[in-house]
Amino acid sequence: MNDIEISQAATTAPITEIAQTLGLTPDQIEPYGNNKAKIKLPVTGDTKNSKLILVTSINPTPAGEGKSTVTVGLGDALKRQGKKVAIALREPSLGPVMGMKGGATGGGYAQVIPMEDINLHFTGDMHALTEAHDTLSALIDNHIQQGNALNIDPRQIIWKRVLDINDRALRQTVIGLGGRTSGVPRQDGFDITVASELMAILCLSKDLADLKARINRIVIGYNYDKEPVTVADLKVAGAITLLLKDAIKPNLVQTLEHTPAIIHGGPFANIAHGCNSVLATQTALKLADYVVTEGGFGADLGGEKFMDIKTPVLGKTPDAVVVVATVRALKYNGGVAKTDLEAENLDALAKGSANLSRHVQSMQHYGVPVIVAVNRFTSDTDAEIKQLLDFIHDTLHVPAYDTTVWANGGGGALSLADAVVSATAKSQAFNPLYQPEDDLMTKMTAIVQNIYGGKDVELEPKAKRQLKTFAKYGWDKLPVCMAKTQYSLSDNAKLLGAPTDFTIHVREFVPKLGAGFIVAMTGNVLTMPGLPKHPAALDMDITADGKITGLF
Amino acid sequence: MNDIEISQAATTAPITEIAQTLGLTPDQIEPYGNNKAKIKLPVTGDTKNSKLILVTSINPTPAGEGKSTVTVGLGDALKRQGKKVAIALREPSLGPVMGMKGGATGGGYAQVIPMEDINLHFTGDMHALTEAHDTLSALIDNHIQQGNALNIDPRQIIWKRVLDINDRALRQTVIGLGGRTSGVPRQDGFDITVASELMAILCLSKDLADLKARINRIVIGYNYDKEPVTVADLKVAGAITLLLKDAIKPNLVQTLEHTPAIIHGGPFANIAHGCNSVLATQTALKLADYVVTEGGFGADLGGEKFMDIKTPVLGKTPDAVVVVATVRALKYNGGVAKTDLEAENLDALAKGSANLSRHVQSMQHYGVPVIVAVNRFTSDTDAEIKQLLDFIHDTLHVPAYDTTVWANGGGGALSLADAVVSATAKSQAFNPLYQPEDDLMTKMTAIVQNIYGGKDVELEPKAKRQLKTFAKYGWDKLPVCMAKTQYSLSDNAKLLGAPTDFTIHVREFVPKLGAGFIVAMTGNVLTMPGLPKHPAALDMDITADGKITGLF
Repeated sequence: MNDIEISQAATTAPITEIAQTLGLTPDQIEPYGNNKAKIKLPVTGDTKNSKLILVTSINPTPAGEGKSTVTVGLGDALKRQGKKVAIALREPSLGPVMGMKGGATGGGYAQVIPMEDINLHFTGDMHALTEAHDTLSALIDNHIQQGNALNIDPRQIIWKRVLDINDRALRQTVIGLGGRTSGVPRQDGFDITVASELMAILCLSKDLADLKARINRIVIGYNYDKEPVTVADLKVAGAITLLLKDAIKPNLVQTLEHTPAIIHGGPFANIAHGCNSVLATQTALKLADYVVTEGGFGADLGGEKFMDIKTPVLGKTPDAVVVVATVRALKYNGGVAKTDLEAENLDALAKGSANLSRHVQSMQHYGVPVIVAVNRFTSDTDAEIKQLLDFIHDTLHVPAYDTTVWANGGGGALSLADAVVSATAKSQAFNPLYQPEDDLMTKMTAIVQNIYGGKDVELEPKAKRQLKTFAKYGWDKLPVCMAKTQYSLSDNAKLLGAPTDFTIHVREFVPKLGAGFIVAMTGNVLTMPGLPKHPAALDMDITADGKITGLF
Repeated sequence: MNDIEISQAATTAPITEIAQTLGLTPDQIEPYGNNKAKIKLPVTGDTKNSKLILVTSINPTPAGEGKSTVTVGLGDALKRQGKKVAIALREPSLGPVMGMKGGATGGGYAQVIPMEDINLHFTGDMHALTEAHDTLSALIDNHIQQGNALNIDPRQIIWKRVLDINDRALRQTVIGLGGRTSGVPRQDGFDITVASELMAILCLSKDLADLKARINRIVIGYNYDKEPVTVADLKVAGAITLLLKDAIKPNLVQTLEHTPAIIHGGPFANIAHGCNSVLATQTALKLADYVVTEGGFGADLGGEKFMDIKTPVLGKTPDAVVVVATVRALKYNGGVAKTDLEAENLDALAKGSANLSRHVQSMQHYGVPVIVAVNRFTSDTDAEIKQLLDFIHDTLHVPAYDTTVWANGGGGALSLADAVVSATAKSQAFNPLYQPEDDLMTKMTAIVQNIYGGKDVELEPKAKRQLKTFAKYGWDKLPVCMAKTQYSLSDNAKLLGAPTDFTIHVREFVPKLGAGFIVAMTGNVLTMPGLPKHPAALDMDITADGKITGLF
């Protein structure tokens, strides 16, 4: 059976029962159908005695790593061992679902369900973000059209438009054509919704008031005097916040094994911080004893940003980090072509394991116990698994387990769960990578040297100029969010394994004052993906009686 | 109290109880929170013994008519008189809500609730349509980018993009800029979502299979041989239908008086047919004895299209038509400026009443009993009301009642409800305006002469050329959907009252094969509204504890 067949064959428990296992009464949730709900805010409870486990991974490859699958499987395993557990995940974006992925809710017997709803419109959060973002865009262009009292320079608007669609044709557009009554012509473009600053804001907001305050701080562009213009200047934060009044509430679903899963928010892990919402993680911590969550892409992006951007807002650091690797992905990192990954190749595995070493070390830098989960594929040979586990134990000196959650659900991660329970039993001092008062250059250098394993940071001319003006506005002490390719530790997507001695080139900075960080753009980071030659959408269908195929 | 204050002060009955009054068990609905639900399909039942009441109006004016308010009030009045009633309404579009209207769910004590949810994202139907529409757009541009096997001419794509936002700057755009990897440059533009053919399709579909069949028939443009290219050619109807799997289910809410209201779909009444979904009306007819529904804009647009486009699909014609008029709007039609409408003006009222006469006569043409509801405003004088009611009784020979539903809810329309009950007690032979086999020109002429009170139809050169090619594809016998200004019976928005002897100019035809009609574009019909100088969004807010202001 494939993923959707497994999902469709499953029986969901009524969402009120799942809520009940977390101590939530029916009037503390808002049902969306019988197996999805939003959790009403605020949720009372304490977060400090709960254990937080961050699941991250090596650099993603076309071979597949299965980070979400391991996150779900680990949650199920902890539940099987009698723990009160909640999983916190990101919401899938429809763009990739229709493009390459087909789905993003784990896989096999380690899935959150109903996968078809979660992968499609779910509870509407993504659409509310799109609507809120583009309403702000329309209000900006309308402001200019109606007299431009704020003196906004149409050439310096940085607030683009968004759609939750992979649509390369919208990356660069000209709008406002058609004469006097149809706006002011200007260059514009669309990002995918998960790249919207509003998504990052939603995921970092503590409550509705914080959400509105952050929206007020968004810099939408500059006026003719080169001064920043904010949403506060436009006086529309109320309307934009109103459009997000339900999106801010975390969503509750379940795994195939009826483990509660809180799925909420999903910012890109390159141009944003790549983790589910603070409210989701916080709610999970208040309601459960063990919370398993994940960061986007590899440990260099989602992992680092979880530690440096999310935890200061969350007020809680992870008690353990699980780094997911696969034999296939490490062989790919060792130079094996995508088509040859099925064949045993111990040399390439050894060579590619350098990528895993780097990510383990970078997570160890934070002083948190690290455990490796080797997500086993059927093509992996026993010799490959043994070599990899031995390498991790003997050379990296960290616990490592092969997991078979795709085939066995929680039963495939019981040893991993045991290790997580013992690792989190003792409290550890968190060692931050940088201090809040460090300047942007110091912060970036710390990330490049300690996380990426590189040498230094070089600013291109535009970035250099920006750094000077940022000091003027007091933006130079904000956290930095590195927008870097997910495929390499460097800013060159083709450099696999564990490159060293490289320089990270910062093209420009994008101030995201609402999110509260400065994005450093390195290399070419696409904020609007395209569709492939054969999009997943072409294989999707629904029958007259509602049976769905082609989501996987 | 204003509308939202009244709505917020109201107590909603649990949606399961509202469903129960229609004979729906809890497992026949999918709750969205505690006071909204989707009705699972199919619903069993018979429609033929239920009474269908269509509420329509004179031409809309800035003075306000209150058609939705009367629809809700009439439903509540019928319920007060012990009838088993359901109201069927269109879903509001967020574009106008953020722009001029602030809300579109009735008013005062004749509202559907929760008005803030219905006016904002509701159950996500509008967003699902946006996503489905724009996914198709992206798949079209991707097809061209990836080799263009169908030989689509980028200059002849008629499938634009949509957003549920009033955004004039997106009316005319250039997309695909940025070089080889970012698509093929071409002229494009955005409509508002309610103008999407998918909205019209959703509202005319009988079930999921019909929805997919209609989507397959959509003409997205032409190839270099000038032959139409359809969604079937692109092989993506499955994915697009999948994105609408929940949007096709009617939504259940309630009025302030706990009358069930099925709110579903909301196509524009100019470039589309302007009525809530066939499935919503049909479901209401199956479950209730009296169904009150409305058509968009005036009787010349929403009324005519209800009769000529919707009823053949619905398989049921109205048992009575209620035409809503206000003293203010008729005075406006009689030449009074918007600022002077508060002052009594019997002459202007007499003059402007010609507009009402025309709409009453056009609806009488269908052989259905017509009743006029005068929606009373506080500024109306007794003399004005008396003169208007006398005119309707004595000159038009139809029953007429003043209603005060804004102030009194169902209690303000009890006489109107009595009249509706007696008018619908006897069955009437429906007299169609034209025969299905008539050609487009015959159909348009019938509409212009019998509904608008005009003289004839003139085709501009492009429309003439199109008519010839349409015959070739067998499109010349389809129903016609007139895209005309809503403000005048003619195609000149400034011609108020009841003009005669005018010609309707058809600029071009737009084939909407999925919806199953040909749109005749007359004059300048905007399919993407703009925001006003002071958009409603500027006055909206939400407090830290979730209290909403500025929706009205």
